[in-house]
Amino acid sequence: MALPVRTNFKHLFRFIHKMNSPKRLLCSGACEGNKEPPGCGRVFSGIQPTGVPHLGNYLGALENWVALQNQYPSVLYSIVDLHSITQPQDPAQLRSNILDMAASLLACGINPERAILFQQSQVSEHAELSWILGCLTSMPRLRHLPQWKMKSKLKNEGSVGLFTYPVLQAADILLYKSTHVPVGEDQVQHLELAQDLARIFNNRYGDLFPEPGALLSSTRKVKSLRDPSAKMSKSDPQTMATITITDSPDDIALKLRRAVTDFTSEVSFDPETRPGVSNLVTIHAAMARISAEEAVAQAGGLDTGAYKKLVTEAVVQRLTPIREEIERLKSDRAHLEGVLARGNRRARELAAPVLREVRQRVGFC
Amino acid sequence: MALPVRTNFKHLFRFIHKMNSPKRLLCSGACEGNKEPPGCGRVFSGIQPTGVPHLGNYLGALENWVALQNQYPSVLYSIVDLHSITQPQDPAQLRSNILDMAASLLACGINPERAILFQQSQVSEHAELSWILGCLTSMPRLRHLPQWKMKSKLKNEGSVGLFTYPVLQAADILLYKSTHVPVGEDQVQHLELAQDLARIFNNRYGDLFPEPGALLSSTRKVKSLRDPSAKMSKSDPQTMATITITDSPDDIALKLRRAVTDFTSEVSFDPETRPGVSNLVTIHAAMARISAEEAVAQAGGLDTGAYKKLVTEAVVQRLTPIREEIERLKSDRAHLEGVLARGNRRARELAAPVLREVRQRVGFC
Repeated sequence: MALPVRTNFKHLFRFIHKMNSPKRLLCSGACEGNKEPPGCGRVFSGIQPTGVPHLGNYLGALENWVALQNQYPSVLYSIVDLHSITQPQDPAQLRSNILDMAASLLACGINPERAILFQQSQVSEHAELSWILGCLTSMPRLRHLPQWKMKSKLKNEGSVGLFTYPVLQAADILLYKSTHVPVGEDQVQHLELAQDLARIFNNRYGDLFPEPGALLSSTRKVKSLRDPSAKMSKSDPQTMATITITDSPDDIALKLRRAVTDFTSEVSFDPETRPGVSNLVTIHAAMARISAEEAVAQAGGLDTGAYKKLVTEAVVQRLTPIREEIERLKSDRAHLEGVLARGNRRARELAAPVLREVRQRVGFC
Repeated sequence: MALPVRTNFKHLFRFIHKMNSPKRLLCSGACEGNKEPPGCGRVFSGIQPTGVPHLGNYLGALENWVALQNQYPSVLYSIVDLHSITQPQDPAQLRSNILDMAASLLACGINPERAILFQQSQVSEHAELSWILGCLTSMPRLRHLPQWKMKSKLKNEGSVGLFTYPVLQAADILLYKSTHVPVGEDQVQHLELAQDLARIFNNRYGDLFPEPGALLSSTRKVKSLRDPSAKMSKSDPQTMATITITDSPDDIALKLRRAVTDFTSEVSFDPETRPGVSNLVTIHAAMARISAEEAVAQAGGLDTGAYKKLVTEAVVQRLTPIREEIERLKSDRAHLEGVLARGNRRARELAAPVLREVRQRVGFC
């Protein structure tokens, strides 16, 4: 009855970068019908409250969230705590992780004047719409999602929540009539479920939901510093593998000094044959906002040991103001709670009339 | 993606009578730990909005609902429209069925001063608690419920909602910290899920939910008038098989005149060998509030043809005021809506602090 399964995709909706530029967000095939240029439409994305993000989260998602809030007139970012309990959570830890995530998002540049930053569980309409959409979702449709197929091979399979969370994701998106959803490649099929459910609902009850398009751009994945074949992950048991955005300069220096490279001393960018050094180049380029080629050029004449100091400098320079801002924000819990409370209120204001309309069309009133 | 499966247990929580007395509601083994006598505790039950109930609903459930509202200090009866959409519904029909069910419940004697009569979809906490409980429910636990096992043999299996509705039932019950739940035998395992979820939640997050006990009494089932081996059912394609509580005296007389009996002319009560006549005796006894033996005694000297007139008289006498009251209530839609709105408000007042406590314990705030 417990929830023994742990998944490694804590971040539901993730961005994949195209050509190292956070501004280049391309529509995938899934949103071909969605012709609006940036400047119209509504973006929705969510992140699980895992506490303080790591460098992979920052470069893989949050940096883009900041860019998107300036490109679209309406943007919602949700701390998706309802999703987080599909795995067991310690309540006190979850509570503090929610505030830590809020602080981190603000420190990374999410501007609550431009984006509605809110906590999913405080907007009851998410669970309500999820029930209604679940009644429009066939069992085989969910069972054939690759992530469930993967998990159901594990013993005990996990909870009903872990099985049905793609329906809640669809509700998260449709509840705001979102038009654009930044997704990682592993989430494309979940977005397709949201698209299908929009179509099914519209067919049965009349047009209401736009089919949300994917903002899919290609990969800039930050790898583990200890095993560059794996993604950087918060749950990595090796503490040296992951840089969190609140790590001190000393910790960052230490972790990068210990980063796995190879036996070639010069620096080059070749993720296939030299994943360790290339991961450092990726991090360097992203943090210094330069291309991988420019990063390699800056490394000219340096061996990997010396290059690590250069990377450290770039990371520390970028993360120091963020770390300081997180510390400042965390010392003012009331402010954080106030930001979320305002975001929750604004999200509810958008969600309530949509759910009212849904209820009316379904025949509940 | 549609919902091709139709179930025949439209009424989620049903009563089974013991010795023809609606006052004799016995605790099953499932509520052995629940020692409170009537006079304390809280009763919860739900009924799907199928429109006007038939005689089987009336005698199998509603009569007992009326009795229970006078036995327990706190009673909630819910028109469970969220459950109804686990099968496809026409919105206009659903809308009118909800009001028809409300009118029928009131006309049958549900007193909104004694029982909180409300519409499930209007209390958002049901869906919210259902999500949280779903994260505490293992997939095998749901899959092994006999009703799902039965349904999953059918092609296409039905919707995610049809699979997860026992979790929503558990939420319906626990949301009000209900102590007593009238159930039919086919729902005992669903109540056991609610009991398990109360235990699991309490173990993980500290005592909050009482384990709801079953009010299980033995069978008084009304059978189809055309096929006494089957239960009387609203979805029976033979219109002559089912008496609804709004049938006119002429319709009642016609349906009973056509009721299947056998080739023996005298009246006796033996459901095994003479199901048709015994069904008439059951109906007669229940409607005239007498025992089966007394009913048979009153039939002394009558052949089944003449007995049908006696049964007709008893049914017409009992249903006429109910039918008239339903007509009166249905002509005053604003009144019905007002009764439900008040019930919804009162249900929310009970549900909100419980869900607030749940949210707090889970770590959402």
